Amino acid sequence: MKINKVLIVGAGTMGQQISFQCAMHGFETVVYNHRAPSLEVCRQAHQSFATHFQQTRGVPAKDTDAALTRLSYSTDLPSACEDADLVNESILEDLAIKQPFYEQLCQYLPQSSIITTNTSTFLPSQLTGCITRPERFMALHFVVGIWDAPIAELMGHPGTSADTVATTTDFARAIGLVPISINKEQPGYVINSLLIPWALAAQSLVTNAVTSVEDVDRTWMISTGMAMGPFGLMDMIGLGTVHAVLSNLADASGDAQQRKDADYVQAHFIDQGKLGLKSGSGYYDYPDPAFSRPGFLG
Amino acid sequence: MKINKVLIVGAGTMGQQISFQCAMHGFETVVYNHRAPSLEVCRQAHQSFATHFQQTRGVPAKDTDAALTRLSYSTDLPSACEDADLVNESILEDLAIKQPFYEQLCQYLPQSSIITTNTSTFLPSQLTGCITRPERFMALHFVVGIWDAPIAELMGHPGTSADTVATTTDFARAIGLVPISINKEQPGYVINSLLIPWALAAQSLVTNAVTSVEDVDRTWMISTGMAMGPFGLMDMIGLGTVHAVLSNLADASGDAQQRKDADYVQAHFIDQGKLGLKSGSGYYDYPDPAFSRPGFLG
Repeated sequence: MKINKVLIVGAGTMGQQISFQCAMHGFETVVYNHRAPSLEVCRQAHQSFATHFQQTRGVPAKDTDAALTRLSYSTDLPSACEDADLVNESILEDLAIKQPFYEQLCQYLPQSSIITTNTSTFLPSQLTGCITRPERFMALHFVVGIWDAPIAELMGHPGTSADTVATTTDFARAIGLVPISINKEQPGYVINSLLIPWALAAQSLVTNAVTSVEDVDRTWMISTGMAMGPFGLMDMIGLGTVHAVLSNLADASGDAQQRKDADYVQAHFIDQGKLGLKSGSGYYDYPDPAFSRPGFLG
Repeated sequence: MKINKVLIVGAGTMGQQISFQCAMHGFETVVYNHRAPSLEVCRQAHQSFATHFQQTRGVPAKDTDAALTRLSYSTDLPSACEDADLVNESILEDLAIKQPFYEQLCQYLPQSSIITTNTSTFLPSQLTGCITRPERFMALHFVVGIWDAPIAELMGHPGTSADTVATTTDFARAIGLVPISINKEQPGYVINSLLIPWALAAQSLVTNAVTSVEDVDRTWMISTGMAMGPFGLMDMIGLGTVHAVLSNLADASGDAQQRKDADYVQAHFIDQGKLGLKSGSGYYDYPDPAFSRPGFLG
């Protein structure tokens, strides 16, 4: 099937970026949120993305202008669903919110439309019960900073049709992303499966006073050529998210070290309002964090 | 104290690189090995390092020539120990070999000399029993490809003197490395503490047929800007080493997934003589592995 119009559900950080990425690649894109103020924030974000693309990425104004004309914003689900060929959902990671939303969505959406979720928390098969066309449903997962880390992870559930996988894979390529195929349902996709144990190992070294934040990042950056180490990256992801992941892991595993790691992040950062890059302070201070300064690498 | 002469014990890959690094930074350097043929291989490696530095790093021939004149080779421990201010040991990772070696070393070495070990396997405190000056003993750990990943990890045991730590730290800087301070004994230093869980997570994704080697590496490379992903790096480290680490972890933890991961590497690579980059084949084929080709990142 041919995808013409896409519906992006949720106007938070991810929804803002995904919808802009779709519009920049020629798709008519509607952003749905039940709150008008959230849509206004999204519209402003799109304006600033356009400016950013013009000023720092050399994209002609006519191209960003055209993308902005492809974007629309709606608090009305029935009209947002009209003619939508593909939906991507990035609403709150709470089944009590997602399930009734999907039930509503399926009432209004054409039966032929593909539904995808950007969830990081749930497996697709945990959501199929409230979807009337489970064969047309799968996860399509994006990375924050979508244009800097242009991957799209694809994960179906056992009932997803091959045609849905193929169409969604083609769609990911059509919006400028590299599709990553996950052939079995599992928590964490690929990028999170790699990042989480790596970041956890880094945090344990610091929680246990084995070495310093700076020496961990310096070691990784020198050895691998990456522009930041695990603590720089955690600041970028946001320490609220980092704490939630650590805390959920600790709850699930009952592991004493993981609990110490989560408590460390709570006491040193969350309780002090230090949320990383976006709050100006975390493992490092921003702008101009130590790891970006000349001489940090020795 | 002032370090003038260093003794590098062991003429394998690490000993070859560490001794060359010391000589290139102006230190009189003797390489000890009890087998003359190993020393001859080491001498040839030093010649080819010199050529490499001239041809690809723009180092003048007079500088590499001077380094080569600072290097000597000995199968005689008593004479190798004469006037050595600092020793670094990279012999086999076997206590039954290391312990008697250290007892011998301490007989011949000046009492004021510092002894360091490059062991990846043992904690310094596991070796102090056979060392007559434990306060002058600590780990000084290097990364293979020492000039591309110029870090030196420093880890004392509870009895290491502050002066030994300070002198060894200064020495690491003097041979062009960035010292990484580890303030408590723990297995794995910093780099291995980060690399191992990351590589293990990658291997589990492939062992469990969740996704492909290429998609794991592509995901990491695109998301982080690193020049290789975990499988490219494992090929570089060598799959014999990777298998030994996985297998030791599985033995120690009794974890079923870790055992499956070790068995996968055994069956797919070790049993087929595929040892990674050095054997020409591993997760990728060499030279010209897929992950370095244009188009790999999509």
